[in-house]
Amino acid sequence: MPGAAPIAAARPSDDGPLGILCGSGVTPAAVADVVVKNGRPVMLFPFKGFADPSEVARFPHEWIALGQFGRFKRLAQQRGCRDFIWVGGLVRPRISQLRFDLGTVLMLPDLIKAFRGGDNHMLTTLGAFFERHGFRILAVREVAPQMLAPDGVMTARAPSDEDRADIEKGLDLIATISRFDVGQGAIVARNHVLAIEGIEGTDGMLRHAAALRDAGRIRSGDKTGVLVKMPKRGQDLRFDLPTIGPDTVAGVAAAGFGGIAVAAGQTIVVDIGRVIAEADRAGLFVVGVKAREPGTAGS
Amino acid sequence: MPGAAPIAAARPSDDGPLGILCGSGVTPAAVADVVVKNGRPVMLFPFKGFADPSEVARFPHEWIALGQFGRFKRLAQQRGCRDFIWVGGLVRPRISQLRFDLGTVLMLPDLIKAFRGGDNHMLTTLGAFFERHGFRILAVREVAPQMLAPDGVMTARAPSDEDRADIEKGLDLIATISRFDVGQGAIVARNHVLAIEGIEGTDGMLRHAAALRDAGRIRSGDKTGVLVKMPKRGQDLRFDLPTIGPDTVAGVAAAGFGGIAVAAGQTIVVDIGRVIAEADRAGLFVVGVKAREPGTAGS
Repeated sequence: MPGAAPIAAARPSDDGPLGILCGSGVTPAAVADVVVKNGRPVMLFPFKGFADPSEVARFPHEWIALGQFGRFKRLAQQRGCRDFIWVGGLVRPRISQLRFDLGTVLMLPDLIKAFRGGDNHMLTTLGAFFERHGFRILAVREVAPQMLAPDGVMTARAPSDEDRADIEKGLDLIATISRFDVGQGAIVARNHVLAIEGIEGTDGMLRHAAALRDAGRIRSGDKTGVLVKMPKRGQDLRFDLPTIGPDTVAGVAAAGFGGIAVAAGQTIVVDIGRVIAEADRAGLFVVGVKAREPGTAGS
Repeated sequence: MPGAAPIAAARPSDDGPLGILCGSGVTPAAVADVVVKNGRPVMLFPFKGFADPSEVARFPHEWIALGQFGRFKRLAQQRGCRDFIWVGGLVRPRISQLRFDLGTVLMLPDLIKAFRGGDNHMLTTLGAFFERHGFRILAVREVAPQMLAPDGVMTARAPSDEDRADIEKGLDLIATISRFDVGQGAIVARNHVLAIEGIEGTDGMLRHAAALRDAGRIRSGDKTGVLVKMPKRGQDLRFDLPTIGPDTVAGVAAAGFGGIAVAAGQTIVVDIGRVIAEADRAGLFVVGVKAREPGTAGS
């Protein structure tokens, strides 16, 4: 709860509100709630066309467009925001759809470079761009550590030895494809890789898996198979952390898999209480595991 | 056209009909047509629950079930089949769904091993099982070489330099994930990996991509993006070669991508005349490229 002295001048300050750059997904409001609970006021900067208006309505916010860096910089300084976190993804926009203001046009070569390659590459380049203008991008760990997945089994059900082997395979796979800057998720069932997450996202992959299960294309038994989520190796952990929430549990249950494994400390869990309660009700496990490098055998 | 002497005894012979073990997909009939055109009679052994009855109706055939190895061995000897090719996939059955006859029960430990791991592992293990009983598994290259993708551009349109870079990235990706025994396909658009093929198969991946394009989730321009298909590295090329056909062209066109690249000599092209004609009509390229090992830069 603020109670802090009013900010003396309208200029960037470590004590100012935490700016939250909001992409798509339901994470921004959940993170903002925790930051406020931890005692720091927030100021949201949702991206037009990406952030969900209902997510930001409860908080002070200013809409910005990708490309309106001049406007963003002016607003951030007026609001006294120097520190930011970046929450939610930016589904790749088409460069021709961006509206550029004067503050951005000067940076076009950098931005165009940012749009070649995967999402991680794009976000890291945008982050460096913010930092060159005196803003700091913090990690979720620094402002809302309790949103990150804990280590170990969170549910009544624990993964079996076979589930553990599937989890290891999924972690190894995600680590191995990291340099292609593609998925942060995979589904492995009884030593068989069923799906690797692409631009459809985790929910899309799970919906697709449920349809394949209905069509008889997934024949491993009910409650076998694990959704594994881990950030890409080498990824800047200030951007686009893998995220799960109650919807993820519902998707895993609908597709008939047995549980979820996430990289402990490197995955956002939205509403962990409901995640655990709904996983328990569905008879699924949720476990935080150690992130790993590619190709190393064992746990 | 046979004209050959009738087979003296009903026992396995190099000169007997070529046995075709038929899994799912439209490939078996297309391959059988070419083998017959090349002068060797065929005898199809479609797997119940996998092969399409309309695919095998035009040819002499005997239905077999996975697990009925005793029945298969007797039929193959009666028909004088010693040489086989394996065409089409076997979507992983649940072990409990198999019906075992006496000839198979003795081999159960081997079969159970075959069902752990990816499809490639399963097929290779089944192949070794056939060979231990005196049958030979040939490669498509040995009996129907004209079904394999040629090297070079097949269509009026050729891939651009940007398309070539996307193709290289896709080949590198497929090579890199080979040890996970998962997809033989990926979609790459302007240096961005959009999808990696899992158990949904190529057609499923393309349908999914078309839906994502409709939903605005794929924002790269129309006619950008390449479907890349290549066998896993280290894969036994007698089994489950990547396959494209007119349906693949239709799927790529529907999803708004620019073309298809396949590993020359290691990909089956069903009805290449129609593939080229329909790709030309849709303004797509189809190109056969050199398969490659992981992580080697350049072409």
